[in-house]
Amino acid sequence: MVHTKMLDAYPKDLGQIDKQKLAECIAACFECAQACTACADACLAEDMVAELTTCIRTNLDCSDICVATGNMLSRRTGYDADVTRAFLEACAAACEACGDECESHGSMHAHCRICAEACRRCEEACRDLLASLG
Amino acid sequence: MVHTKMLDAYPKDLGQIDKQKLAECIAACFECAQACTACADACLAEDMVAELTTCIRTNLDCSDICVATGNMLSRRTGYDADVTRAFLEACAAACEACGDECESHGSMHAHCRICAEACRRCEEACRDLLASLG
Amino acid sequence: MVHTKMLDAYPKDLGQIDKQKLAECIAACFECAQACTACADACLAEDMVAELTTCIRTNLDCSDICVATGNMLSRRTGYDADVTRAFLEACAAACEACGDECESHGSMHAHCRICAEACRRCEEACRDLLASLG
Amino acid sequence: MVHTKMLDAYPKDLGQIDKQKLAECIAACFECAQACTACADACLAEDMVAELTTCIRTNLDCSDICVATGNMLSRRTGYDADVTRAFLEACAAACEACGDECESHGSMHAHCRICAEACRRCEEACRDLLASLG
Repeated sequence: MVHTKMLDAYPKDLGQIDKQKLAECIAACFECAQACTACADACLAEDMVAELTTCIRTNLDCSDICVATGNMLSRRTGYDADVTRAFLEACAAACEACGDECESHGSMHAHCRICAEACRRCEEACRDLLASLG
Repeated sequence: MVHTKMLDAYPKDLGQIDKQKLAECIAACFECAQACTACADACLAEDMVAELTTCIRTNLDCSDICVATGNMLSRRTGYDADVTRAFLEACAAACEACGDECESHGSMHAHCRICAEACRRCEEACRDLLASLG
Repeated sequence: MVHTKMLDAYPKDLGQIDKQKLAECIAACFECAQACTACADACLAEDMVAELTTCIRTNLDCSDICVATGNMLSRRTGYDADVTRAFLEACAAACEACGDECESHGSMHAHCRICAEACRRCEEACRDLLASLG
Repeated sequence: MVHTKMLDAYPKDLGQIDKQKLAECIAACFECAQACTACADACLAEDMVAELTTCIRTNLDCSDICVATGNMLSRRTGYDADVTRAFLEACAAACEACGDECESHGSMHAHCRICAEACRRCEEACRDLLASLG
């Protein structure tokens, strides 16, 4: 995977961070960003779109923070633990909200079910990385 | 200003949020995002770029979270207080880190001085809005 | 305005670009990005959201490309005329599509009317800057 | 892969688009976005960062347009062929510029070599999808 190769190619020491958890979190953020963008759009294509407006909004927030967090985690120069934690908390909160919302109508919409799974993976990856930061 | 007009044009009730503080925070987020992108680039153009790499990285994180937060705040449908708070905390943390970093060499670089001011305004706007959320 | 101050603070020569048109285009991109994000969300809050799904999608594309273009234009180091032109063409195309779409129901929705104006300004700013690039 | 599952779960007809090429292009955009963000940061960590400023700038442009294009392609509602083409042209141009720049010092920096490959894949995926649009 390219993101793992890029971590291996970083020219300085990566510091005390858990490289495996970091790589998983980067991958989960970009996967979840794409899933949430696609889920918002699939909701727009449903006949019952009027009942899915909260889901769409939650998807859009989640997609935005996942890209921001995936980018931040991909940067290792000038590491700041406080900023890292705050992004991870925000990303986990958005993924939790979006996962809950999508799951609540996952039985009706396959895109919500798939998106909820991506949100759960990303939330877990954020929380695992947070826990490892000490 | 367009962002204020858009809040006024929102077709449903905006809820209990302080509209003035919300509008100021949206404006500050987009202003800070642009300033941070430009400051990272201006740092790249300095002869002493090797001493500005932490500043560049901090700028990039701050720009990303400011866009994500400005977008999130611009959405009023399906409001989620927990997600809102987590984004605002992350944005304030990134603005604080970037403001501190830019300020530390603001006497040498006008772009860092201007960017530090934008970061301070955005951090304050985020914290003011956070405080008003109760 | 901060974006103008940042251009003035750029430590090297800005090259042959028309600084006034550049500054206007950067401002228009970030203004339009915010307006499109807010318009997508206001459409979600309309009772007739099912008739506004194309508008929402067009808004989201336009917001994304406006941020990307506003960021790209804010960078002056390592200028590439071909890349600059291609972004501006894409941004103008998205603004034209979104302006047309929003205008078509501007008489019913104030947010679409305001957003259409922001799209027209941004499209014009992109085309003016494109023309000045020679 | 989640992006392919999301295309399969889209509730309406995807239209005449080549689903395989579309899926490859979405994946390539998000992969390239991450690689470019990481490469910009790895360049910042090189002792010779002063010689890599054009590379960093090109990486940042490429990352931004790849996210915008990956998001746009993930949306299938209200499809607009002209907007799609303009984004793909801009993304291909940025990937070509970044691929050329990174390749030019790929022998010295593994992160540039890996990033150049991601840019080539994404440029090719954009051009293949463009060609298939007719």
